Amino acid sequence: MIYLDNAATTYPKPVSVLHSAEKALYDYGANPGRSGHRLSLETSRQVFYAREKCAEFFGGETENTVFTLNCTHAINFALKGVCNAKGHCHVITSDLEHNSVIRPLHALYKQKQINYSIADSGGSDDELLSAVEKQIRRDTAVVIMTAGCNVNGRVTPLARIAELCRKRNICLIADCAQAAGVIPLNLADGINIICAPGHKGLYGPMGTGVLVTDGKYPLSTLIEGGTGSASGEIDQPDFLPDSFESGTINTPGAIALGRGVEFVNSKGIDRIYAHEMSLCDLFIKRVENIGKIRVYRPEKVKSLPVVSFTAGDENSSVTADMLSKNGFYLRGGLHCNFLAHKKQGTLETGTVRLAPSVFNTRSDIIKLTELLYKKYS
Amino acid sequence: MIYLDNAATTYPKPVSVLHSAEKALYDYGANPGRSGHRLSLETSRQVFYAREKCAEFFGGETENTVFTLNCTHAINFALKGVCNAKGHCHVITSDLEHNSVIRPLHALYKQKQINYSIADSGGSDDELLSAVEKQIRRDTAVVIMTAGCNVNGRVTPLARIAELCRKRNICLIADCAQAAGVIPLNLADGINIICAPGHKGLYGPMGTGVLVTDGKYPLSTLIEGGTGSASGEIDQPDFLPDSFESGTINTPGAIALGRGVEFVNSKGIDRIYAHEMSLCDLFIKRVENIGKIRVYRPEKVKSLPVVSFTAGDENSSVTADMLSKNGFYLRGGLHCNFLAHKKQGTLETGTVRLAPSVFNTRSDIIKLTELLYKKYS
Repeated sequence: MIYLDNAATTYPKPVSVLHSAEKALYDYGANPGRSGHRLSLETSRQVFYAREKCAEFFGGETENTVFTLNCTHAINFALKGVCNAKGHCHVITSDLEHNSVIRPLHALYKQKQINYSIADSGGSDDELLSAVEKQIRRDTAVVIMTAGCNVNGRVTPLARIAELCRKRNICLIADCAQAAGVIPLNLADGINIICAPGHKGLYGPMGTGVLVTDGKYPLSTLIEGGTGSASGEIDQPDFLPDSFESGTINTPGAIALGRGVEFVNSKGIDRIYAHEMSLCDLFIKRVENIGKIRVYRPEKVKSLPVVSFTAGDENSSVTADMLSKNGFYLRGGLHCNFLAHKKQGTLETGTVRLAPSVFNTRSDIIKLTELLYKKYS
Repeated sequence: MIYLDNAATTYPKPVSVLHSAEKALYDYGANPGRSGHRLSLETSRQVFYAREKCAEFFGGETENTVFTLNCTHAINFALKGVCNAKGHCHVITSDLEHNSVIRPLHALYKQKQINYSIADSGGSDDELLSAVEKQIRRDTAVVIMTAGCNVNGRVTPLARIAELCRKRNICLIADCAQAAGVIPLNLADGINIICAPGHKGLYGPMGTGVLVTDGKYPLSTLIEGGTGSASGEIDQPDFLPDSFESGTINTPGAIALGRGVEFVNSKGIDRIYAHEMSLCDLFIKRVENIGKIRVYRPEKVKSLPVVSFTAGDENSSVTADMLSKNGFYLRGGLHCNFLAHKKQGTLETGTVRLAPSVFNTRSDIIKLTELLYKKYS
């Protein structure tokens, strides 16, 4: 089996992550932040350590770092949190966005809580930047944008967009679903809220995500409940992370995610990026001469190590299915992102997505392309 | 170490649950419901099996069973889901509720989306029932109630309340945080939506919860995003469970929760209840003659295996701390439920809570009560 579906979730996980999840299940089994007994306190310490690692990784404060179920929950908490605190407002996003951004935006719009505009990303950073600037209105309160597209890998110029936003007091929320752990992302770049999955480039288990805010914009809560703090109050606590962590968190997941972040740090994000990009480049070079294979990759912009391709007019699910039968696990379809497919003209077939992790090798790519050559040249 | 804080989370977990979580981390590591390759499909099958187990357990349909982060998220999804779909309405709850019910209710009230009334549970099922009936108004759309109080263990007569609700087309939501896995709870009793944690009486890992609906009342979504389904649509899918499972679920947690439910089924819920109640009864009998120990337990009503107590005027945290130093792990404080403490007059001291699981023994209780005798008689 050769697994190349790491943009859906990384697999396998590093041994340190697996062992940490297991140790948490066996040894840190009390509810953290609830009771005062030793096992609960020890579990709390482990969760705190993981929270600290995630905070440092994104340049945030530990207390401003919230564990969520996944990146989508973090995005909903951030987007609806800012918009509901603000009242009716205008939001700008791009045409590279995943349904995790577009669907909550559209839901807010249908509830008459916001208006939103989709900036045309064009073909370059300058074009995207200028499109965003043109959409800014007097009531624009939020720009929410992917750090890198999950379909074609296009990286957005977030630091430059942050500059636009800062001047106008617009909150910049970054969907780092594909980019976290692959390219540097930091609140210091001017992003106000970073939303990231734990189970992709940070190598934590599924069931983990993180929201890191610089605290500049107040956030309404979407979910309230017991937090183990201020329990005598009928109102949700107004301090982070408690305000956004109602009920028991995914304790073994969070603890293991801390190890995942340590793993990324130990490998070095630049080396991870270079390794995975070299595999993508190898893939692209080797399929260049395969007649039916078409690669969709934006030029003139920075890219994530994600490559979308199709094989002739074949539906991408058929291609992915053939690959699966031959032991290559890649995802076909729309990847929950119809905007990006619309833009590149692949709404009908979808694309097959190659997404290597740090554990993939040149040999994986060579074997895959040999098969593609056999089938499609 | 003797762990008796199982109302916060059960510990240890059954071996089958631990092994299943480990196997999921190692062998079912692809994203379920996203890709079409074999590893993803196999992971999906495992998740489906767990979903089926949870559905059967609560008498629901598999597709109407949603995996959530925890019980609090399930409660928020259910309560806000029904209320937002309905428009401005009135909700009834009781004075036994956890902050996971009271805080979202109060948040909805402050957003002017609902009014709510708190029914006085009095001292008997009849009193509670009649108090709920008195609060019913023409615009009452929801009754939300705990199946059993997490502070004093009082069980509510949900089947009888369901009868009241059904006649008037009122949606009954049950918070089964403490009761699931300990007393029988089933949609067949007339409950419309069951919310339960996975990590307490169902013996799954932390980071799991479940919402099971009979589908009678439409639910607005609170969180939208990618679901791996209908990806070409900007609107959130309107079918369960996808509509309420945006983003990647806690896959290893969900799979292991399925084993937890199997564990409960294999032990038998009645035997679990009898065993844990016998430990509570033993505790109560043995502390009866310890001068300073006072037990708070409602009479004339059915009870969960949860016992709250105080030692003289001592703050419950001090008592719990002393117990922890001696190797007994129990929770002190308000247990995220100020209403129940207000009712029983323990808001100032809080209570220490004894909550055995299926793994505790008579010897655990005897050792604990010997220590209490030494300290407080």
